[in-house]
Amino acid sequence: MLAPSVNKESMKIVKEIYESPEKYNVILKKDRSGAHIIDAGINANGGFLAGETITKICLGGLGGAYISSMRVNDLELPSITVYTDYPAISTLGSQLAGWRIKVGGYTAIGSGPARALALKPKSIYEKIEYKDSADKAVLVLEASSEPPEEAIKMISDVCHVSNEKTFLILVPTSSVAGLTQVSGRIIEVGMYKLCEMGLNPNAVRYAWGQAPIPPIHPDAIEAMGRANDMILYGGVAYYIVSYDNDEYLRSLVKRAVSSASKDYGKPFAEIFREAGHDFYKIDPQLFAPAKIIVTNMRTGKTFTAGKINAEILFKSAGITIEP
Amino acid sequence: MLAPSVNKESMKIVKEIYESPEKYNVILKKDRSGAHIIDAGINANGGFLAGETITKICLGGLGGAYISSMRVNDLELPSITVYTDYPAISTLGSQLAGWRIKVGGYTAIGSGPARALALKPKSIYEKIEYKDSADKAVLVLEASSEPPEEAIKMISDVCHVSNEKTFLILVPTSSVAGLTQVSGRIIEVGMYKLCEMGLNPNAVRYAWGQAPIPPIHPDAIEAMGRANDMILYGGVAYYIVSYDNDEYLRSLVKRAVSSASKDYGKPFAEIFREAGHDFYKIDPQLFAPAKIIVTNMRTGKTFTAGKINAEILFKSAGITIEP
Amino acid sequence: MLAPSVNKESMKIVKEIYESPEKYNVILKKDRSGAHIIDAGINANGGFLAGETITKICLGGLGGAYISSMRVNDLELPSITVYTDYPAISTLGSQLAGWRIKVGGYTAIGSGPARALALKPKSIYEKIEYKDSADKAVLVLEASSEPPEEAIKMISDVCHVSNEKTFLILVPTSSVAGLTQVSGRIIEVGMYKLCEMGLNPNAVRYAWGQAPIPPIHPDAIEAMGRANDMILYGGVAYYIVSYDNDEYLRSLVKRAVSSASKDYGKPFAEIFREAGHDFYKIDPQLFAPAKIIVTNMRTGKTFTAGKINAEILFKSAGITIEP
Repeated sequence: MLAPSVNKESMKIVKEIYESPEKYNVILKKDRSGAHIIDAGINANGGFLAGETITKICLGGLGGAYISSMRVNDLELPSITVYTDYPAISTLGSQLAGWRIKVGGYTAIGSGPARALALKPKSIYEKIEYKDSADKAVLVLEASSEPPEEAIKMISDVCHVSNEKTFLILVPTSSVAGLTQVSGRIIEVGMYKLCEMGLNPNAVRYAWGQAPIPPIHPDAIEAMGRANDMILYGGVAYYIVSYDNDEYLRSLVKRAVSSASKDYGKPFAEIFREAGHDFYKIDPQLFAPAKIIVTNMRTGKTFTAGKINAEILFKSAGITIEP
Repeated sequence: MLAPSVNKESMKIVKEIYESPEKYNVILKKDRSGAHIIDAGINANGGFLAGETITKICLGGLGGAYISSMRVNDLELPSITVYTDYPAISTLGSQLAGWRIKVGGYTAIGSGPARALALKPKSIYEKIEYKDSADKAVLVLEASSEPPEEAIKMISDVCHVSNEKTFLILVPTSSVAGLTQVSGRIIEVGMYKLCEMGLNPNAVRYAWGQAPIPPIHPDAIEAMGRANDMILYGGVAYYIVSYDNDEYLRSLVKRAVSSASKDYGKPFAEIFREAGHDFYKIDPQLFAPAKIIVTNMRTGKTFTAGKINAEILFKSAGITIEP
Repeated sequence: MLAPSVNKESMKIVKEIYESPEKYNVILKKDRSGAHIIDAGINANGGFLAGETITKICLGGLGGAYISSMRVNDLELPSITVYTDYPAISTLGSQLAGWRIKVGGYTAIGSGPARALALKPKSIYEKIEYKDSADKAVLVLEASSEPPEEAIKMISDVCHVSNEKTFLILVPTSSVAGLTQVSGRIIEVGMYKLCEMGLNPNAVRYAWGQAPIPPIHPDAIEAMGRANDMILYGGVAYYIVSYDNDEYLRSLVKRAVSSASKDYGKPFAEIFREAGHDFYKIDPQLFAPAKIIVTNMRTGKTFTAGKINAEILFKSAGITIEP
């Protein structure tokens, strides 16, 4: 069986946006070079619908995503549920925010299908043994301004596609669409963690997850903190894995959840401030789902560890419950 | 950015009904004047699927809606989840049941996109600063019989469209489709309440909500009572608002939930009977979601008040749990 | 109103699979006779997306189905939610696994729309007063190998369609897609039970349900056991019925749930082993949803019995919760 093209599959969803830009609350334009820009949150007001759709695009068109609900203690929160039958390709090979764009003074974080054309970073594509060769490139840019012409040219060039076949989706992290699609990375965060800890990503065959969508915050660090907290303290990720050692999986799950980190236990923005705003001083173990469930399809055993932490979620989200 | 057309966007969903009328369990006809009638519950048996789809149409094609689940105490109930990134336009400007049709002996309550052509009522469209100018009109009629020719002509005329471009969706309130789409008004009920209490509707930027779908009842008053109770005692609405005063929002949320009403605490049908079947004797404060959550996007603060009231929900819904 | 064609309606969903086979992780082929084969789990890796889509096909294109979430005790499990406004036709007349294919040495269990062409078994179609006469046949085969030519010919013949208009979807029970679509039978299992106990299937007008998707197991008996347990100990089914006797419905619901069976209380695989691997020695009363809710649309009364049994679900699913 041939591997699917994440760019080709996600273009089907991009097409839906072009058919109803008003519904998705996005602005469509072309830059001078002919590249297609989908503004989902800079001058547009993209929200839940844009966030849900960007999540499907980020998954390379190879999964499902929809706005759902999680009850944390006694409070129902808008959430996002995601699932894919290609966890390695759709999360590590596409959704992962793994392409740092830096052209002149412009910086943005790139995620989504185009990474599989540009092979950013190459080590991941070697590990998952995948690359795409589609003639169209779809890239999601977490950015707060539009990319300049030279950045667009660089992206098209590295992806080996013409400008006219380049589709750039712009979404600021701290917009509602941006926060929705960050929560939509719940499966990916766990995949990355498990694989950093040594699991072969291609051993993971199916995945499902859900996480609350954080209430928006005007401060970039607070917004980023909340986005992380929804995963670290509120996210659930389920993986079906083919592996020959149950004991290893059992121990892996236990060590992989966020609560296994020494930095666990405070809202992320607080941890970040205490680390002097330096990501590298934060325990990398922290970046993981609150709860992980793993089924070994070779033995039928299921292991789970971690828990939803309502107290920190509410503190992070700034939720005041009136009596 | 131009405002979207609720009639144009909802026509995309109407088209889906025309492609699979059997699936939606509706009957399609044309009246003598050429107007299009979608019977979803008079001679048809429209249920959950029709109700879900009518909700999306009522939201002006600018939101999501699907049949979901809520657990109340230990009982899972079919529910409807809705969300929109245009709360003012899609709920007040479209979904609100704000057009009382009365032609000869025929009466029906009109809701949905065509209201934004007819500007019914005008005060709302002035408040939300929106009107539509599409060349097709889509109106949902809560009615138990088909409209006569003169009613259809009146509707087309007031909407400034030809009869052939008028689409009327008929749904009795006490049908399964009808009850589903009433629960689908959870966001709208809260929007109306918040705005009646003084909030500028355009300050509300994003919304999400869910409510149980009431068990059907053959008696019109009981059915209407249950439909209200699902919102008043079981509905949750979440709003993202841009506002300059947290203290005001905090107090607003507290005063806006149904439990702040002096009439709170009994099934609606009982309250209605005690009021001598006179709506105007019921405290208007009662018409609100059980629970409201508001996030202020300018400060990142979130306020919530109210609660799901399982006891009254079960009493209203006539649910007997066998031991 | 004419009854809809389950084959015609489900072909719309089959078409979606043909447009994105990679997304659904299926392999499309034609056999020598021209029949269309959709391999969703023999040489393909169909998972949650294929399972969700096969469920919609099995429901004859007359319902909704999606991957959802159920929280059992403190654990969120991937689940499937289904609903239909044609319970008799879409579950008994289509989804039911009622066609035992046996041609030469090849055996498979057939379910889905084509049964309504082949009238397998005839007694059910007499009871629900339905048959289909579409010119295309869509059959889901729970099978672990591809059918030989003579089996395909037999299927086409019995359905009165040409080979080129026969669509066979192959899914092994113990694959992720297979287990997903088995949990997607939650409404059907309850329909079958209620009707076996004497309820007229055509009295059931609307239905909704949900059940967890079992963790996969390499052993066929364990996998089948888990699939059953998700329904018996974790499934919820809701029916809206038109009936003239509340007392009968109340008693029916109480007797229809799985917990009313004398064999209730152990994982199914254990019961099966104790019965010497003989299905006929297992109390047929056991095959029912854990929880049933019935609303009588003539009186507005709702009856419910049964409960989710977390202890047995976790035991069956082999779930170990790390401290």
